[in-house]
Amino acid sequence: MMKALTYIEPGVIKYQTVEKPKLLEPTDVIGKTVLTTICGSDLHFWRGAFPETNALAKKNGTRGVILGHEGLIKVEKVGPEVKNFKPGDICIVSCVSSCGHCYYCEEGCEAHCAENGGDCGCILGHEIDGTQAEYIRVPLADTSLYKCPEGIPLESLLMLSDILPTSYELGVRDGGVKEGSTVAIVGLGPIGLAALLSAKALKPAYIVAIDLDDTRLELAKKLGADYTINPKKEDPVSFVMKLPINRKGKQPGVDTAIECVGSPTTFELCQKLVGMNGIIANVGVHSKPTNLEMERLWIMNIKITTGLVNTNSTPELLKKVVDGDLDPSPLITHHFKLSEVEKAYEVFKNASESHAIKIVLTPD
Amino acid sequence: MMKALTYIEPGVIKYQTVEKPKLLEPTDVIGKTVLTTICGSDLHFWRGAFPETNALAKKNGTRGVILGHEGLIKVEKVGPEVKNFKPGDICIVSCVSSCGHCYYCEEGCEAHCAENGGDCGCILGHEIDGTQAEYIRVPLADTSLYKCPEGIPLESLLMLSDILPTSYELGVRDGGVKEGSTVAIVGLGPIGLAALLSAKALKPAYIVAIDLDDTRLELAKKLGADYTINPKKEDPVSFVMKLPINRKGKQPGVDTAIECVGSPTTFELCQKLVGMNGIIANVGVHSKPTNLEMERLWIMNIKITTGLVNTNSTPELLKKVVDGDLDPSPLITHHFKLSEVEKAYEVFKNASESHAIKIVLTPD
Repeated sequence: MMKALTYIEPGVIKYQTVEKPKLLEPTDVIGKTVLTTICGSDLHFWRGAFPETNALAKKNGTRGVILGHEGLIKVEKVGPEVKNFKPGDICIVSCVSSCGHCYYCEEGCEAHCAENGGDCGCILGHEIDGTQAEYIRVPLADTSLYKCPEGIPLESLLMLSDILPTSYELGVRDGGVKEGSTVAIVGLGPIGLAALLSAKALKPAYIVAIDLDDTRLELAKKLGADYTINPKKEDPVSFVMKLPINRKGKQPGVDTAIECVGSPTTFELCQKLVGMNGIIANVGVHSKPTNLEMERLWIMNIKITTGLVNTNSTPELLKKVVDGDLDPSPLITHHFKLSEVEKAYEVFKNASESHAIKIVLTPD
Repeated sequence: MMKALTYIEPGVIKYQTVEKPKLLEPTDVIGKTVLTTICGSDLHFWRGAFPETNALAKKNGTRGVILGHEGLIKVEKVGPEVKNFKPGDICIVSCVSSCGHCYYCEEGCEAHCAENGGDCGCILGHEIDGTQAEYIRVPLADTSLYKCPEGIPLESLLMLSDILPTSYELGVRDGGVKEGSTVAIVGLGPIGLAALLSAKALKPAYIVAIDLDDTRLELAKKLGADYTINPKKEDPVSFVMKLPINRKGKQPGVDTAIECVGSPTTFELCQKLVGMNGIIANVGVHSKPTNLEMERLWIMNIKITTGLVNTNSTPELLKKVVDGDLDPSPLITHHFKLSEVEKAYEVFKNASESHAIKIVLTPD
C-alpha cells in the first residue's frame, strides 16, 4: 500500500492509503516519487471541471484518480518493452504520456496522442492515477520520461514536467518570440512567470508584464520584465502603444501577446496589444467564449494559437537548464511534505495571499 | 491623356479621361495596360468601405483614385533606379507594392511594407491610382513586378496579380494544406475557388467545398472538390464529422478550414469544422466582430491566421502555372473592353445571377 492524494468529488480531495501501482502495459515504468508539485490545472480538477475525472470517480466508488501530473521518480520496475530506462534511474515524468509514433505524435502534437485509444496524452491525474503519490505508474515510459542529468538541483528539474514546456511551447515558441522581438505577458501566475523566464532567455527587445497583483509584478521585474503594468493603475494598451519602436517602419503593438489567464477580458486585451504581423499565443484555460475583433484583425496578418503542451521541447529546455541559460528555481516558493499535500493545495489556491508560485512536495 | 475608372464617392465610380501617369519616384515604372480585372475588394472600395480612399476623393475634388490592383503591363518607361525591367517587357503587376528591405518585407509580411511612409503595401487602387486604366504607374517596380514567361496565356498570368497569391498564401499556405491533409473551404467566390485550385495541386486527402449557391458548388466539383455541401440542404458540420478518418488515431474535423466569406456565421462554422491540431485560415474581409469558442478551442492545439496577401509566393505560383501544375484559366468567366468597365462592375457585383468569377478587361 502507499499514500496518495485522491480526487473524491467536485471540491473534495483526500490524502489516503491506496494500493501501489503495478505494471499494466509492457511499456510502463513504476517509479518511487522523488519530488512532485501542484499545477494550476490541478485546481480545475479539484473543483470538478473535467467530466472524465468526475466520471471515473463515480465509477470507482471509493475514490477517483490520484491527482498530479508533474514529478521526478526513481525507477523501480520497468515493463518488458521499456528500452531506455532501468531501475535506479532518476527521471523527469512528462505531464504528457505519448507514444511517439501515432498520427498526432508524428505531427508534433503529442498532447493528443491516441496510442492507448484515449483522446489525449494528458492523462496522468486526469484519466489515470497521477503523480501526487508515493509511487507512480508512467505509461509509454520510453517517450514520456527524461533522465535527470547529474549536478542540477532536482527541484529545478521538476519544473520540466510541465510548467517550463507548457509556458515555453504554448507561449514563447507558438508566440514566435525571438531576439529583438517585443512581448507582452498577460497574467503572472506560475505559467506567466515561467513564460517570462524562457522568453527572456531568447533576448527579446522588451517584455511587458501585466497583472493585477503588485507582488507578482515585482517578481516579474526581478525575473527580467522590462516593464510591469497593473491595469488597475494604468491602461496597458496606451502604455504599449507609446513604447519606442525598435525597428524603423514598424508599427506599434507587440509581436507576441501571451495570454496566461484564460478569461474573455484578458484574451481581448491581447487582441488590443498585438501589432501588425504579431501572434496571440494562448496558454490560459478558458471556460467561456470570447469576442474576436475580426473587423480589425482580419487585415493585420496576425495568428492566434491555442493548445495543450506537447512536451516535445523538453530536451531543448533541459539543455538550457543544464547550460545555465534558463534557471527555473525562482519559481519555487514553498516546500511541503507529501503528507501535507491537502494543506499545500490550500496554500496554492490562496496564492493572492500566500504568493505561492510552485510548491515542491517531498515524500515523507 | 488616357481613360480610367475613377472612384468618385461611396457607390459612384466613373470611367473618364484623366492625365496619364508620370514617373514620380526613381523606382517607378510606367506601363501600358495589357489586361486588367476586377477583384472582390474593388466592390468594397466602390461602396466606400475604406476611409483612405474616401479621404483622397474628397481632397482631390473632381475624382478619387483610379481603382484596381491587378493587371499586366507592357513597360513603357523606367525610373533611373529600376534595374530588373526595361521598356517592352510584359509584366505581372503585383497587387502589393513592396520595397523588399523594410522591417515588414524582411519579416515576409510585404502587405504592410512601410518603405514609402505608408502603413500598407496594398496601395494600388486604394491610396494611389490603380490598374483599371490605360496606363499604370507601378511604384517599387523591381520588387513589385514579375516578368511574364512566354508561351503562357496572358489571361492566366493575370490571375497572379492577386487572386492566386491571396487564396494560396492566406488560405492554403497559412492553412498548412499538404499532401494527405483534409480541407474545408467555406465560400466559393473567386477567392474560395482559387484556394480550391491551389489546395488541390497539393494533393490533400479531400476537399469539402461549402457554399449556398448550387452553381458555384457545381463549379467547385469540376475544379476538384471531393465533396460539395449547400448548408441550406445539409448540415456541413455533421457531414464533415462523419467523413472517413484517413489516418489511424486521428479525430474527426478538418486539418484546414479556409474562410473565404468574411462573416461571423462562416467564421463560426470554420470553428466547428476544424479538428484537433488544425488551422482556421481566414481570407474573408470582415466588418463585424465574431464569437470565438475559446471554451472549446483552447485545448485543441489549433491556429487561426489572418491577413492581407504578401505576394511573396508569386514566383512559386508562377512556376506552377508554367509547369502546368496549376491552371487558373477556369476562373475566367467573362470578358469586356476596358471602356465597358462600369458594366463589368455591375456584372461582377451581381455574381449570383451572372455567375461571374473573374472578368478580364482589355484596353480598347
